[in-house]
Amino acid sequence: MESGIGEYCGLFGIHDVEHAASLAVLGLNALQHRGQESAGIVSSEGSVLHRRIGLGLVGEVFPDHESLQLLPGRSAIGHVRYSTHGASDYRNTQPFRVVTKDGELAMAHNGNISNARQLRAELERAGVIFQTTTDSEIILHRMARSQCESFVDRLKEGLSGLQGAYSLVFLSREGLVAARDPFGYRPLAMGELEGRTVFASESCAFDIIGASYVRDVEPGELILVNGEGLQSQRIAPQRRPAHCIFELVYFSRPDSKIFGENVDKTRRKLGKALAFEADVDDADITVPVPDSSNTSALGFSRRSETKFELGLIRNHYVGRTFIAPEQKGRTERVKLKFNAVEGVIRGRRVVLVDDSIVRGTTMNKLVDLLRKAGAAEVHVRITSPPVRYPCYYGMDFPDPEELLANQHESLEEIRDAIGADSLAYLSLEGMLRATEKDPRDFCSACFSGCYPEPVEGIDATIDNGKADSLMDHGDAG
Amino acid sequence: MESGIGEYCGLFGIHDVEHAASLAVLGLNALQHRGQESAGIVSSEGSVLHRRIGLGLVGEVFPDHESLQLLPGRSAIGHVRYSTHGASDYRNTQPFRVVTKDGELAMAHNGNISNARQLRAELERAGVIFQTTTDSEIILHRMARSQCESFVDRLKEGLSGLQGAYSLVFLSREGLVAARDPFGYRPLAMGELEGRTVFASESCAFDIIGASYVRDVEPGELILVNGEGLQSQRIAPQRRPAHCIFELVYFSRPDSKIFGENVDKTRRKLGKALAFEADVDDADITVPVPDSSNTSALGFSRRSETKFELGLIRNHYVGRTFIAPEQKGRTERVKLKFNAVEGVIRGRRVVLVDDSIVRGTTMNKLVDLLRKAGAAEVHVRITSPPVRYPCYYGMDFPDPEELLANQHESLEEIRDAIGADSLAYLSLEGMLRATEKDPRDFCSACFSGCYPEPVEGIDATIDNGKADSLMDHGDAG
Amino acid sequence: MESGIGEYCGLFGIHDVEHAASLAVLGLNALQHRGQESAGIVSSEGSVLHRRIGLGLVGEVFPDHESLQLLPGRSAIGHVRYSTHGASDYRNTQPFRVVTKDGELAMAHNGNISNARQLRAELERAGVIFQTTTDSEIILHRMARSQCESFVDRLKEGLSGLQGAYSLVFLSREGLVAARDPFGYRPLAMGELEGRTVFASESCAFDIIGASYVRDVEPGELILVNGEGLQSQRIAPQRRPAHCIFELVYFSRPDSKIFGENVDKTRRKLGKALAFEADVDDADITVPVPDSSNTSALGFSRRSETKFELGLIRNHYVGRTFIAPEQKGRTERVKLKFNAVEGVIRGRRVVLVDDSIVRGTTMNKLVDLLRKAGAAEVHVRITSPPVRYPCYYGMDFPDPEELLANQHESLEEIRDAIGADSLAYLSLEGMLRATEKDPRDFCSACFSGCYPEPVEGIDATIDNGKADSLMDHGDAG
Amino acid sequence: MESGIGEYCGLFGIHDVEHAASLAVLGLNALQHRGQESAGIVSSEGSVLHRRIGLGLVGEVFPDHESLQLLPGRSAIGHVRYSTHGASDYRNTQPFRVVTKDGELAMAHNGNISNARQLRAELERAGVIFQTTTDSEIILHRMARSQCESFVDRLKEGLSGLQGAYSLVFLSREGLVAARDPFGYRPLAMGELEGRTVFASESCAFDIIGASYVRDVEPGELILVNGEGLQSQRIAPQRRPAHCIFELVYFSRPDSKIFGENVDKTRRKLGKALAFEADVDDADITVPVPDSSNTSALGFSRRSETKFELGLIRNHYVGRTFIAPEQKGRTERVKLKFNAVEGVIRGRRVVLVDDSIVRGTTMNKLVDLLRKAGAAEVHVRITSPPVRYPCYYGMDFPDPEELLANQHESLEEIRDAIGADSLAYLSLEGMLRATEKDPRDFCSACFSGCYPEPVEGIDATIDNGKADSLMDHGDAG
Repeated sequence: MESGIGEYCGLFGIHDVEHAASLAVLGLNALQHRGQESAGIVSSEGSVLHRRIGLGLVGEVFPDHESLQLLPGRSAIGHVRYSTHGASDYRNTQPFRVVTKDGELAMAHNGNISNARQLRAELERAGVIFQTTTDSEIILHRMARSQCESFVDRLKEGLSGLQGAYSLVFLSREGLVAARDPFGYRPLAMGELEGRTVFASESCAFDIIGASYVRDVEPGELILVNGEGLQSQRIAPQRRPAHCIFELVYFSRPDSKIFGENVDKTRRKLGKALAFEADVDDADITVPVPDSSNTSALGFSRRSETKFELGLIRNHYVGRTFIAPEQKGRTERVKLKFNAVEGVIRGRRVVLVDDSIVRGTTMNKLVDLLRKAGAAEVHVRITSPPVRYPCYYGMDFPDPEELLANQHESLEEIRDAIGADSLAYLSLEGMLRATEKDPRDFCSACFSGCYPEPVEGIDATIDNGKADSLMDHGDAG
Repeated sequence: MESGIGEYCGLFGIHDVEHAASLAVLGLNALQHRGQESAGIVSSEGSVLHRRIGLGLVGEVFPDHESLQLLPGRSAIGHVRYSTHGASDYRNTQPFRVVTKDGELAMAHNGNISNARQLRAELERAGVIFQTTTDSEIILHRMARSQCESFVDRLKEGLSGLQGAYSLVFLSREGLVAARDPFGYRPLAMGELEGRTVFASESCAFDIIGASYVRDVEPGELILVNGEGLQSQRIAPQRRPAHCIFELVYFSRPDSKIFGENVDKTRRKLGKALAFEADVDDADITVPVPDSSNTSALGFSRRSETKFELGLIRNHYVGRTFIAPEQKGRTERVKLKFNAVEGVIRGRRVVLVDDSIVRGTTMNKLVDLLRKAGAAEVHVRITSPPVRYPCYYGMDFPDPEELLANQHESLEEIRDAIGADSLAYLSLEGMLRATEKDPRDFCSACFSGCYPEPVEGIDATIDNGKADSLMDHGDAG
Repeated sequence: MESGIGEYCGLFGIHDVEHAASLAVLGLNALQHRGQESAGIVSSEGSVLHRRIGLGLVGEVFPDHESLQLLPGRSAIGHVRYSTHGASDYRNTQPFRVVTKDGELAMAHNGNISNARQLRAELERAGVIFQTTTDSEIILHRMARSQCESFVDRLKEGLSGLQGAYSLVFLSREGLVAARDPFGYRPLAMGELEGRTVFASESCAFDIIGASYVRDVEPGELILVNGEGLQSQRIAPQRRPAHCIFELVYFSRPDSKIFGENVDKTRRKLGKALAFEADVDDADITVPVPDSSNTSALGFSRRSETKFELGLIRNHYVGRTFIAPEQKGRTERVKLKFNAVEGVIRGRRVVLVDDSIVRGTTMNKLVDLLRKAGAAEVHVRITSPPVRYPCYYGMDFPDPEELLANQHESLEEIRDAIGADSLAYLSLEGMLRATEKDPRDFCSACFSGCYPEPVEGIDATIDNGKADSLMDHGDAG
Repeated sequence: MESGIGEYCGLFGIHDVEHAASLAVLGLNALQHRGQESAGIVSSEGSVLHRRIGLGLVGEVFPDHESLQLLPGRSAIGHVRYSTHGASDYRNTQPFRVVTKDGELAMAHNGNISNARQLRAELERAGVIFQTTTDSEIILHRMARSQCESFVDRLKEGLSGLQGAYSLVFLSREGLVAARDPFGYRPLAMGELEGRTVFASESCAFDIIGASYVRDVEPGELILVNGEGLQSQRIAPQRRPAHCIFELVYFSRPDSKIFGENVDKTRRKLGKALAFEADVDDADITVPVPDSSNTSALGFSRRSETKFELGLIRNHYVGRTFIAPEQKGRTERVKLKFNAVEGVIRGRRVVLVDDSIVRGTTMNKLVDLLRKAGAAEVHVRITSPPVRYPCYYGMDFPDPEELLANQHESLEEIRDAIGADSLAYLSLEGMLRATEKDPRDFCSACFSGCYPEPVEGIDATIDNGKADSLMDHGDAG
């Protein structure tokens, strides 16, 4: 089973409006940063569902008005997906649409079921046929097999017993449904457009269609929207949430509100906290890795009182550009994407701010780009702690042994590996305090190894000694 | 004849290297901002030329290694093109490849021939068949018809008599040729890669392949590169150049060097000059229209001592995304592309910095976006004067009557039209002084109406009174 | 549920050879006449199955060597499909590939399950999710849910309880399986290629790869081929078969052997029998509707001693050619496909031989074409009885009320409807005696209304009086 | 220069009807056998021409009604093209559309200009740019350069001086033009549809749209059709024509009328003449190579009184099907296309009738197929003489040394090479007498080496001794 598939996704759902599918296209466009590999929409005309999916960007799968003609109806759900698996597999493209005893049913999923292996094995033993290799399909089979009376009860029974992360939207003749796992790992917000209900992973999808943010779908909540209005139910009793801190640090758009917080504001505070913990004394300029670190670098530069400069330019057209094998010695992917502005960099002591280091390969090349452009010094500052542990809730990190922080014994060695003059990570505590919530409301397992719930086949009592030791050095960077 | 086609382009050429076409792909990627409608490469194996062109981004036309297998050879030229004409016409995609008495000949052109109509009519009368509606084809016919002895002389005779803007690269069995019109309207630089010669519209195309900038192809210069080395000739006697100031203000990439200047540096000075001329006294924040105005907004914020903030987020995935007719009332193109960061904007007095206003429709929506996000005030500052006159040298402005500055009698009316609290343009003089050259070395006809050379069918003695009067108000904004 | 889907198909399977997929491409090419809408191949490398499917002809889905690179392995199954449903649905394209407790499993089906509705409802109630609207998927779910110990027993349990027609090939880590329903409605032959086992709907698929015909898969037989050899099992006890007579009359290729008979020989005998029953006394020439009636027309001409002439020419390129709405008055599909050879037809008394009349629209136009080309008389002779009843076993006839023979009270009226000077059908008895088997070994329900087994929701005791009365007139035509 | 391109084509033109382009699609469909590589249509709305071309079949280039929406207007010309050159070159796809002093002008060409090399060199020296590698473009340049007063005179001046074969249709604001070279090598017929004029290569294109054949465009005639009616002019004085005999033998459709003759009738006579010259005494059956030899084989079988049998089945779906490299030992192209009907062939003495032998590779495999199917004897009979000389007028034979008849010294050796029990070709005289015209009205240079006009760079006084000697053996076969 390919674990990890189904992560890095964006969801959209809308109920009872004219031209629901064309609104879904707009919403998915705003969520495109959450997944560029495939896109899909299912629209509903009562009991008949229509589906169009494809590989590529939203604008490629839905290139013109005609591509929406086969998606009539007043309700729709949509999905964008990113996958790290080279061969993009058409089978796994969402929303799924199946036929059950409830008639046609469509579903889109953002997250990762952490006990998928066990659930899948149980279902297979019972004779279930799987069409895809995704966790998401498990949810559908569990629902279809429920013998509860009502549709909502069948959905709830299907969700019970799932572990891990799921933000979900469903479409059927019963209406539009949104649901979120009890820990609320992944975001899912509810909005309102002229009296109608909208759901989306991030609020920027509301802005684009002129809808307004109402509230989050609560962790452990299931909301059914149909002709009789809006009905909220609990899947599980209330508990302390475990929102993914990485969504705030890196993944979401700065103009979005997620987990009830303005991403931009949090990201700026992360930069400030980092400057507080690990300023660079004689630096001339603070340079972000564009665009994801722009806001935190602004925060850093304010607090550290070094000038904010756009010393790296990003080429936004590269997309699926390839590099011919014969040019691989000469040019790396990072050079396709970034170029240094020599007039800004030459002779300067540079603080380069980024949100995270995973494998470290990109950071290494960026430092090199800056040096070649004449930087006098390059000091790397990261607005999160070292990533050292796998995520079972939907972030698709490489294997632990490929993580830069696991390949080296000390911060000094990591610094050396990326070629910087100094390096500092933001501390776990500093990161969590930059949010507006109780620090305990977040999952930071990828940094700390402390998982909110036990994980199938994993011994959760991980030794955190190493992570802490890296942190100790953090201030000294 | 469709005037205006052939403008907004990027050129690349490389001589005598292994895998020339795959280097051209990289170079064109770096020049993608100069044209996203079509891309093409011609490679040369001596007397045989190979060609691949297509509509779309470089990465779409050359999606994989296989797409380069039919482009063997050690020399190549490439072209990216933008056209404002809805129906993209395959015929006009460059580089062109034709067969003349010199054998196969390929050419790519950036610019606009201002006496094309007359030249074309002459050729048609003589029995010439035109395959395209581009100016560029005229050049080829003039060359082919020349009865001069040598290839270079035939090229030169072909170019003589042309008026307007042309940066050109050619490929034939005689070698790689670069040429530039006597006014040097459009950029064209020469670089060096391990002893071999490269040409590109901007130096960022050198950076991506590890080549270094040597010098510009001089205005009025023709350079032939072949096995015998590099041979430079003059097309026309030396004269004062007329570089397009708009390339520095808006069009080129900030990490490029063009006309021998760092774009980033000039753009920053434009921002500072604007702050000097038209600061906003009690503003809280300076916000750029991303990404083209980022650098000048940084300059403005430094000089005006208001905080630089990224208050508008740009969605880089929109590309060819369409808006369904039924959503046109709800969402405009500008909302697909930009969103305001409410946490940054709310309650603030905002200076919005942009590089130019053409039709004014985008600016109007941006001001509206900021107001809806809660801006207390919105002050618009433009790092160039009002665009009022057509460009005959390759910038594709709309008809003069569609230009915002021509639709209103006063700066106050324009301000009112875009809905801003105040508005100021940078003065012509302020703009030209921000460069490192003699102000007289630039063409600023789109602002001033003063054209460097007489234009076919146009009375050049335009009354500049109105432009000046707008400028007068500039300082008061 | 769309009944009727899954019919008109061709199957291929091969075990333990190098480049199994490229042999499958050849085999499917030979079976292309059995379905032109979609094609697909699944190949096996032990427990991993690879799949490529697509809409269009085999040569379009597998256009080059590269398209086979993702289908490695030494075993493969393939499928071509025809569907009468306008909007071709990707979901229904075979072979299917699913994951069950047996690992990856692929299946391709030719036939139609006549109790599908009831079986599907049962499965849905138990919580089964359907991905397609095909009968074929039912088979997979029934197998997956079996709790029998061995793979073969699970397959057998899955097949038990099915009614109707199924020729099947499966691929899994257990090996290659072929199975055929107890009545043997659809053909399925076993061949041998250098000691390896091959299965195909018709023997012409063996010829193309140099394999030789061994025997038919028996009705009610399941054959498992794997490393341990070939294992044959019975699904159901032996009984009298009910081979589809229409396969011999029209559907199969004349160079094939099916049901152990040479199609060409049977078809020639049909023509002779028709001439015996309903010769045309003073006819000049016998003309076939090419190509399906060529052989039977030859038989007719021999027996009736009228000259065989190719008076209709078929344009084989029409494929998916469309007719613009504005030309529909002027040209019909039949004119795109057929043209009369005036030099042959003019002044002649023509016997036009065809294999069957379904709706009668084509026949009407063909008679018209011949008259316009100057035919003195047109006598239509059909090598089968009138089609009057639905097929529940895989032939996709239109609704009974659309069948020409059901729209008219007498043969005379039908003759009048098609505009012929005389009309005769071959009698049921004459048709069945043209085969080499016991007439009772065939299903001729579409002609007689006598179904081999009771059909879900259908009262089988249909009044056959009308069919007989048409037959009575047959001889008088 | 790639000689040979531009041959094997079909033409269509229609004037002043509603939906001209959709009629052109139908007409090109009927002419599809004349070229399957590319298709194109140009339609006219007075002075504006619209063009759509593409690689593939007519039904692929014009797949739906929408594909015709961009081809408005009441006149249209169309073209289908076949090229033997592997890499299909988009540049050469017709109709061409260019801009000259006459405005937009489109042209489609069937034939081959035999003095193209010299004409092209003259034009290149004068400075003409060539866009394609086709002969056809030469015609356009010659017209465009003419300084005659009227459009028709310019066309005529353009055509004067051309040698070789050209059937042409033009479209411009002046009207629809058809023209044919003075020898009338290639067919071009004029028809009438409800009072409007139609042109097509073969009359079968008239049948499909309900038009009727009027007469041929005369050799050396140019016809202009516009609002003022139909105007006929002579390009050159009347002379003895030289129609391509191969059009009747092989290339045209049997239901067509070309050169005023019914193709079917001539082809039947060819078969009879062959049986007269070279019957096989004890043969059991006559088998055609389908479909092109069906008619002549019928003729042979009648005269020789052996039974006509369809012993080879042709798979019409193969189209662009490829054979994977690994299967090339096992299966040849001929097996993809043809299969023997064993029940017909086994134990029989077979006469295999084909229209011509070029390289002989196919015939060799067909004989082999028949032997493997159990033929007792295989006697090959060809309805034309051995092909030994190049065609300069549009038939694309391989190089002379690749022609089977040039690789062997005697008929016996050829027979041996194809593996037949006996072999006979129809004599030149027998072939020519099978037509309805004076034998001297045909070009049979590919058989005889006697060219109707001197060919550029070729010594026409070829020794015909060898051809004759092969003929002598013909009767003995």
